[in-house]
Amino acid sequence: CGAASAQSTVTLFGVVDAAYRNVSNKSESVPATLFTPYYSVKASRTELANSGLSSSRLGFRGVEDLGGGLSASFWLEAPITNDDGATGVSNFSRRSTVSLAGSFGEFRIGRDKTATVLNDEQFDPFGDTGIGGSLIIDANEGSLSGTGYGSNSTYKRAGNMVQYFLPRNLGGFYGNLGYSFHEITRLSPDTITGADRTNTGRHIGGRVGYASGPVDVAVSYAQNDTSFTSGSGSSAVARPGKIKTFNLGATYDFGVAKLFGEYSRSKDQRDPLNIFTPVPSTDLTGYLIGVTVPIGPGQIRASYSQVKYDYNRVPALFAVNTPDPKSNKFALGYVHNLSKRTALYGTIARVTNKNGAGNTVGAGPSYVATYNRVALQPKSSMGYEFGIRHSF
Amino acid sequence: CGAASAQSTVTLFGVVDAAYRNVSNKSESVPATLFTPYYSVKASRTELANSGLSSSRLGFRGVEDLGGGLSASFWLEAPITNDDGATGVSNFSRRSTVSLAGSFGEFRIGRDKTATVLNDEQFDPFGDTGIGGSLIIDANEGSLSGTGYGSNSTYKRAGNMVQYFLPRNLGGFYGNLGYSFHEITRLSPDTITGADRTNTGRHIGGRVGYASGPVDVAVSYAQNDTSFTSGSGSSAVARPGKIKTFNLGATYDFGVAKLFGEYSRSKDQRDPLNIFTPVPSTDLTGYLIGVTVPIGPGQIRASYSQVKYDYNRVPALFAVNTPDPKSNKFALGYVHNLSKRTALYGTIARVTNKNGAGNTVGAGPSYVATYNRVALQPKSSMGYEFGIRHSF
Amino acid sequence: CGAASAQSTVTLFGVVDAAYRNVSNKSESVPATLFTPYYSVKASRTELANSGLSSSRLGFRGVEDLGGGLSASFWLEAPITNDDGATGVSNFSRRSTVSLAGSFGEFRIGRDKTATVLNDEQFDPFGDTGIGGSLIIDANEGSLSGTGYGSNSTYKRAGNMVQYFLPRNLGGFYGNLGYSFHEITRLSPDTITGADRTNTGRHIGGRVGYASGPVDVAVSYAQNDTSFTSGSGSSAVARPGKIKTFNLGATYDFGVAKLFGEYSRSKDQRDPLNIFTPVPSTDLTGYLIGVTVPIGPGQIRASYSQVKYDYNRVPALFAVNTPDPKSNKFALGYVHNLSKRTALYGTIARVTNKNGAGNTVGAGPSYVATYNRVALQPKSSMGYEFGIRHSF
Repeated sequence: CGAASAQSTVTLFGVVDAAYRNVSNKSESVPATLFTPYYSVKASRTELANSGLSSSRLGFRGVEDLGGGLSASFWLEAPITNDDGATGVSNFSRRSTVSLAGSFGEFRIGRDKTATVLNDEQFDPFGDTGIGGSLIIDANEGSLSGTGYGSNSTYKRAGNMVQYFLPRNLGGFYGNLGYSFHEITRLSPDTITGADRTNTGRHIGGRVGYASGPVDVAVSYAQNDTSFTSGSGSSAVARPGKIKTFNLGATYDFGVAKLFGEYSRSKDQRDPLNIFTPVPSTDLTGYLIGVTVPIGPGQIRASYSQVKYDYNRVPALFAVNTPDPKSNKFALGYVHNLSKRTALYGTIARVTNKNGAGNTVGAGPSYVATYNRVALQPKSSMGYEFGIRHSF
Repeated sequence: CGAASAQSTVTLFGVVDAAYRNVSNKSESVPATLFTPYYSVKASRTELANSGLSSSRLGFRGVEDLGGGLSASFWLEAPITNDDGATGVSNFSRRSTVSLAGSFGEFRIGRDKTATVLNDEQFDPFGDTGIGGSLIIDANEGSLSGTGYGSNSTYKRAGNMVQYFLPRNLGGFYGNLGYSFHEITRLSPDTITGADRTNTGRHIGGRVGYASGPVDVAVSYAQNDTSFTSGSGSSAVARPGKIKTFNLGATYDFGVAKLFGEYSRSKDQRDPLNIFTPVPSTDLTGYLIGVTVPIGPGQIRASYSQVKYDYNRVPALFAVNTPDPKSNKFALGYVHNLSKRTALYGTIARVTNKNGAGNTVGAGPSYVATYNRVALQPKSSMGYEFGIRHSF
Repeated sequence: CGAASAQSTVTLFGVVDAAYRNVSNKSESVPATLFTPYYSVKASRTELANSGLSSSRLGFRGVEDLGGGLSASFWLEAPITNDDGATGVSNFSRRSTVSLAGSFGEFRIGRDKTATVLNDEQFDPFGDTGIGGSLIIDANEGSLSGTGYGSNSTYKRAGNMVQYFLPRNLGGFYGNLGYSFHEITRLSPDTITGADRTNTGRHIGGRVGYASGPVDVAVSYAQNDTSFTSGSGSSAVARPGKIKTFNLGATYDFGVAKLFGEYSRSKDQRDPLNIFTPVPSTDLTGYLIGVTVPIGPGQIRASYSQVKYDYNRVPALFAVNTPDPKSNKFALGYVHNLSKRTALYGTIARVTNKNGAGNTVGAGPSYVATYNRVALQPKSSMGYEFGIRHSF
């Protein structure tokens, strides 16, 4: 066993985070007629989970000083599942980049988090981990009837990306800009059968922020091409489109407490199927307020968030429009630091869904969809977990 | 290339073990009638193998001193196949744990070896590696007509496990207790179609031992839920059940030689299919005697072991019951240490099967099952290997 | 984060290489009759690629001094895709070996490069990476109608291999010899249905070279068993055969420029299908000339190579034989070293195919094979890339 040679600078780092977790997801029948029976079905699971406080990972990184203020660096970071040992270093999907940095800033090439999710995580007391994690991210990554959000594969991270980061000495201002290649093969002439003219997978995003003293505020914008094909065979329909996401977040540290706030707005735009059937876009609006309170070596965390879909339906004549889906989430947790690297923690969280929204606390079993041939709708998701997080 | 920063304590460790190996597995026709022809078919394979002396692996581990006698640690260990390079660090199925330890002992969370196999390995001169390795483990992990041993997936290791280890200062006593979650989703009401009420995959086990001077003795007990479904579609039959394993091992070091002994007893209990057809349990009894003899920088190793199945058949009226399957194994080897980390080794081993048992020396091709439409039965497995083991 | 303990010698090393790459592959219809329309179709792709200058990788290696001039060592090296993070350390297919070395030379066991490809890379200014990389390797690994080259899986690397390397103090002479096990299960009697009597996957190869002062020259020979089955079911036909490859390469360093040259000849020999239909072997001849010119901290690289297939057709009576396929490649590049570990680079390359050859610059989309039901033939492949390579 061992590791070594002092001349170099490869750093091995990681997190092993394990938690006892219980999540119950309840769904209910929606009375369609007077004769529809009422059913309520709960799916629950108790498990040993990972990534309750920080995402479990193993990584390799290093920096080389090239002289003249210039440096080259790399970062390879793999997600791992230390609860069951099933996932090793099989990919570097968390981050996989090579950088060239200097007084001009940093060029970073490869797979990385998007500007969008940097904001989502920075302005949420629970970030994107555990059952308390961001409802805004969950909603933006989940599908709902008629929306393309579920195909928004570059919401959180994008591969094949070239990024530019502002230098660090701008008096508190920071920011970055990223472009991710779709890497789709083009045919010329493109009238050939099977020629793909979409840009599916292309991501463009950036953010600008300002951090100084107690205040930190940042705004991000991204545009992800989410063209996809619904149905298959002769009923396959190409659905060109893109999802545009804007968010704005801020924290203010009062010392006795740190306040968090975020506002997020996404628009799922589909091209018209034909000139007679334009497809209204689906909007997804979210906001979050949160707080962390330091208590000795520990910290209390709490957040309340809400997401709302808007199908932009044409007002119905002589009738009431179907109400749009929405969800809200409440999360409360405590982190007890045994050291800078090691902590014990506990979290409880609850998500409530309305009108067909199907968000969960971010883990656990799926909602049951039918009972005795009666369709059920997601109602609420309730979870608690306690665990240990060890970084290295 | 490189590695480094002295402030920290990540240790990179592993084993690369490569061997030339030849295994021949012979099967024979069983004369069902006077007219059944006698056939004997041998399947043999020569290969470059891995893990002849120690299991090839690559791992990362570290300890953090938390002060006050408390420490946090992690251990991530992947199996690798250095002979063909096909398996990298794709999982940490060998071990994947995070621990909190102190004067009270150690809590260890994640995937690890079971108490059962700790005993199997500790009291066998060949452990569980190479063609000389434990017949008791092989039999407990292999299926035989009518037994559920083949579905005993948590015999050797279990994921999603919480373990407690006794502290090290108990005057020679040691021990641990583990519980592994089945993580099956429960539905409420559980009368819904597809609701799974089994605990398949749940493991409970522990062991207690005493090591002092020349003597080391330990006893373990485990209970693994191995409920499974045989058949599929409309003929699918749920087979709830569990396998209970007890074993007792000891070594005594005379200096000129170290003696090994182990006794193992497992019971595969199935719930009755219905009240008219109770299913008798299948017992699997194994024992082993072994010896290691140090010779200069080398060591001779030898073992003899036997396993026997008992179907607990009701005595037949006016007839002789079919005899129960059994296997025995003989293994002999020599290890020549070039250093503490590097060794050359050679092993020969032979397994003999009776009455339908199908054990092998633990490697090599499968027994051929039919020849000219005549069913064959496993008879014997013969192997030899020599190789190099290098640890780091 | 961290790494360490000075007592040991595990070295973590790797390469992250990312490039902007564009490749266009053009195919054309071949006028079969006067009425065949002329079509030209181009498939092109722009992407963020990896391994433009050096193959992206992550590895672990170490050496143990055993005393008396003897040493044990290991080398585990995984290919990675740092552009998209999709491939982590999931296998050690680049190299996975354990060695015992001394004054007698080195025995190396496991997966490694073959002698053949060591020559191909050493005597090509572009080695086997990026769009400028070896056309000779591409051709030897690609299939063409009627050839078994595509099944030559051990052309570049072989697993389950035992190698011997000459010691380093032979006055400039170097060389190695390798044998790779096919690991096919043998049945005895081998008349049983399904018995496999081939040696598919077996590799035997070696090379001898001489390097002194400005000159480096080496010759290699390998024989790979590439028996395969074409068709399936009742029309399956076993095609026993082997591919024999000889190559000879040299470099001469004039200081102001270094010249490269390689000659390669492979023969794909198939056993006769029956005594009436012998199968002529397909020969594949390649040569390369190249040059590198150091310019300050940079280097210009250029190469021209050609490969030619020979089907050894029996001369047609009163007709002209179909001409044999051939390809040539031109590559030009510049490497700008920011340090020993970090470089920026750019390359352009073009491959031209004739008579059905289908080589590309080694990356990019496939040639389009049909347009409006007219079959197309590969014509040319054109690519350019520029990127950054960072080693650690």
